Amino acid sequence: MTAEAILRPVEFHERIIKLQQRMQGQDIAGFLVTQHVDLYYLTGSMQAGMAFIPAAGAAVFYVKRSIERARKESVIPVEPMPSMRVFGTALRERYSSIFGTAAPVKIATEMDVLPAQTFARLAAQLEAAAGHVSLVDGSSLIRQIRMIKSAWEISRIEAAADAVAESLHATVGMLREGMSELELIARIEYEIRIRGHMGMMRTRSYNMEVMTGMLGSGEAAAEPSAFDGPAGGRGLGPAAPQSVSRRAIERNEPILIDVGCCIDGYIIDQTRTAVIGSLPDDMAAAYFHSESLIREAEEMLQPGTSCEVLYDRALKQAADFGLSAHFMGYGADQVRFLGHGIGLEVDEWPVLARGFTAPLETGMVLAVEPKFTFPGRGVVGIENSYLITDKGPRQLTKSPEGLIVLT
Amino acid sequence: MTAEAILRPVEFHERIIKLQQRMQGQDIAGFLVTQHVDLYYLTGSMQAGMAFIPAAGAAVFYVKRSIERARKESVIPVEPMPSMRVFGTALRERYSSIFGTAAPVKIATEMDVLPAQTFARLAAQLEAAAGHVSLVDGSSLIRQIRMIKSAWEISRIEAAADAVAESLHATVGMLREGMSELELIARIEYEIRIRGHMGMMRTRSYNMEVMTGMLGSGEAAAEPSAFDGPAGGRGLGPAAPQSVSRRAIERNEPILIDVGCCIDGYIIDQTRTAVIGSLPDDMAAAYFHSESLIREAEEMLQPGTSCEVLYDRALKQAADFGLSAHFMGYGADQVRFLGHGIGLEVDEWPVLARGFTAPLETGMVLAVEPKFTFPGRGVVGIENSYLITDKGPRQLTKSPEGLIVLT
Repeated sequence: MTAEAILRPVEFHERIIKLQQRMQGQDIAGFLVTQHVDLYYLTGSMQAGMAFIPAAGAAVFYVKRSIERARKESVIPVEPMPSMRVFGTALRERYSSIFGTAAPVKIATEMDVLPAQTFARLAAQLEAAAGHVSLVDGSSLIRQIRMIKSAWEISRIEAAADAVAESLHATVGMLREGMSELELIARIEYEIRIRGHMGMMRTRSYNMEVMTGMLGSGEAAAEPSAFDGPAGGRGLGPAAPQSVSRRAIERNEPILIDVGCCIDGYIIDQTRTAVIGSLPDDMAAAYFHSESLIREAEEMLQPGTSCEVLYDRALKQAADFGLSAHFMGYGADQVRFLGHGIGLEVDEWPVLARGFTAPLETGMVLAVEPKFTFPGRGVVGIENSYLITDKGPRQLTKSPEGLIVLT
Repeated sequence: MTAEAILRPVEFHERIIKLQQRMQGQDIAGFLVTQHVDLYYLTGSMQAGMAFIPAAGAAVFYVKRSIERARKESVIPVEPMPSMRVFGTALRERYSSIFGTAAPVKIATEMDVLPAQTFARLAAQLEAAAGHVSLVDGSSLIRQIRMIKSAWEISRIEAAADAVAESLHATVGMLREGMSELELIARIEYEIRIRGHMGMMRTRSYNMEVMTGMLGSGEAAAEPSAFDGPAGGRGLGPAAPQSVSRRAIERNEPILIDVGCCIDGYIIDQTRTAVIGSLPDDMAAAYFHSESLIREAEEMLQPGTSCEVLYDRALKQAADFGLSAHFMGYGADQVRFLGHGIGLEVDEWPVLARGFTAPLETGMVLAVEPKFTFPGRGVVGIENSYLITDKGPRQLTKSPEGLIVLT
């Protein structure tokens, strides 16, 4: 960790100020922050409750539990959460300049994650508190601010990168023919856990789950899944239908090790491909093409480049290699992106995909994961995570590149 | 697994029929099932998409990905998910008897988990498809059906119970003074993982997370947290503020091991208390009182008993022991329940708490977890999971009871 990479309370205040500036630009009078990860990002505490951040002026964190812990952690004042029946009244009393007037008022909240039931209750409370309040979707405001990482955030992602690299190094030598995918991931997970992995990987999208990533061998890795990624994996059954199965790893087939971890809330995403023996020629070639794609992407990971241009370029390259049908999944189960933001959640913005025309910016952290799927045979590829800087990309993932070949 | 405990496709159809009967009783014309766990429960597949279940007639699972896998797993027909822009039209064409009339129609969905953003889009689509459609909350319908477990579901919970019991047995001997909480849970997690734990514990409540449970020693276990349970734990920092920390386990303090696992989607919940050396007299007494409370609860775990009566009885007993202030947390951070349903999620119904006046029924599975918190010193207690049967409770957790004493 560099000298600058110390978490200062002012960092949270700076994030709140950024959010307030964006709210002012969109004529939003206040933000009701409800999701635990957003609460942590803005206040320093993810205790249970809701924070109200006015477009101007002092924010407050209404906490249900633990108030004691929230008071130690939060950079903004903590108050006991009023009961939902009087929550609107409590807001009107504290923020009379917002709720006490007859003018129409827009209050934002994270409609991408907040359940409809709670949303409806909050909307009714706000409506009761003041005549003309509408609760609108502010999730993109927070997701946009969260795209740009601070020195401290980057230091945490690097700590996670170290933990994964050490764990892969410690376990890959144990890999042998006949070992099950489940046994291999259990060993890796043990290694990341003792290095401080928090025991889960947070996702933002509804229904999307990541255990510690996706590990799969041979045809099991190539089985498609609900997971919005280039490799699904057979999984342990219909109720855990992704990543590892109990399949025994065999010789001369690709072993895809897309395993991350989470240190102090921050996620690293990394993929390496291994083989016991050697890969069939076409899959060996595809693996080396995945390295070519990531080299090409590195050239383009510059402030100002449009996200979708990176994806289009990769599509073109995959076509040049004659691998379009295998790129990022196969057939109806191909996914349509090359990479994604990472941070407190594994599915952050931006996404390297069509429709993401916004330019890359200094401070963004992205996982870039070119992969090729061969149905019934396996998945090969590589994934690195990068920080965008004025001088180009800085690679955060630490494991050596190249196909991992065991005899 | 007993002979009857085989998963038959008809079981999913029976669940759908139960849901249809409840819908008819509430004048609901159809259920749009959106959550992956509910989709698995009703169709046998948790691939990405939405299922429409009419109050009468044939259901359909609209799948985004993977269609191939959903077709192998789902007991109801699978169709490609239409784009959201025409989803209402697609429903109207298939279910003209519901959407093709001018009469008002209620369609249910899981408003307790569905994000407000998607809810709003679906409501607009249904409104466009037919004039008088309202999208209402049906989450309690599904949660009520899910309370009653089948023989196959119970066999999966028992398999999880076996895995946890074996894992605790395999690791508790490694416990020694100076070992960190993190290292202890890493070893237990390795053991449950190689036995088929799916790598995560699913929760239904917004913002609620369970890694593999809650493990904590001495005063770290007694630190309150956002988690809606009787013990929080210090955690690894403000971004992972529950369960284990890096604290070294010491002699003569309680070590609370509330660790479950998840096999084939089904969760077991179990707590044991350990000590290296001996507990201070008051905490040793409190531990034995927690066993008394669970014995008393067992007497009452009968079909027909009101859930809240169990909680009230436990409160009364805790008061008799002079431990009211320590029961299920301390001070402002006490939680107000004695136990909860478990199954595909760790926070299922019913809850043994005030307001849950419904009677226990045969087939319910509950975790009962009397615990006592001593601020600055530790948490002691026990947790077993039980199946309600006509002949009383059948204990599903397998680890021997009693304080685990290491020298």
